[in-house]
Amino acid sequence: MSSFRNISTQRVSAQSIMEAAICTLVTQFKTYAGKDGSSSTLSKDEFQNLVTSELPNYVKNASDPVVIEQLMGSLDENNDGELTFYEFWQLIGKLASKQGGFTQ
Amino acid sequence: MSSFRNISTQRVSAQSIMEAAICTLVTQFKTYAGKDGSSSTLSKDEFQNLVTSELPNYVKNASDPVVIEQLMGSLDENNDGELTFYEFWQLIGKLASKQGGFTQ
Repeated sequence: MSSFRNISTQRVSAQSIMEAAICTLVTQFKTYAGKDGSSSTLSKDEFQNLVTSELPNYVKNASDPVVIEQLMGSLDENNDGELTFYEFWQLIGKLASKQGGFTQ
Repeated sequence: MSSFRNISTQRVSAQSIMEAAICTLVTQFKTYAGKDGSSSTLSKDEFQNLVTSELPNYVKNASDPVVIEQLMGSLDENNDGELTFYEFWQLIGKLASKQGGFTQ
């Protein structure tokens, strides 16, 4: 989308709180996605690690492989066993929506 | 989704960095959405305020009403002139994706 800045080639304002939060989510996704295989997608193990460590209050029973399997299956739109950033974003959108009390 | 915790009725672990970031995005959305009309959706004015103040490095020319009009039109899936949290989430997902260098 042409109205989005390419921040690497523009002079930047101070980072806002919202921009910092977006940055955090991107960085954390990359940290977990980089552990094995493709560094831009989450394998099932990477996904389980991320959910267990980073979403302990939002996803219950994350240490149960069946829970992770089901959750991953519900997100993996193209069913390739890896979660893209977009697929992951939809999960945290649902968690955020629930947390905020919004109906979809 | 039944595997998502209802955090208000569960004992909670310490908030992770990722959970704090999600919380920030929800809180900021609510702050801007609460300024006029429906407190759960962004009007065009609220959206422009949010983008100008909170996404200064990610969206260029946000003070131009035409840019805001186009951006809002591209997000407002049901064309009611208000952005829901879900519609807003899709925007920041695109910004995050671009920032992380992911292809959709």
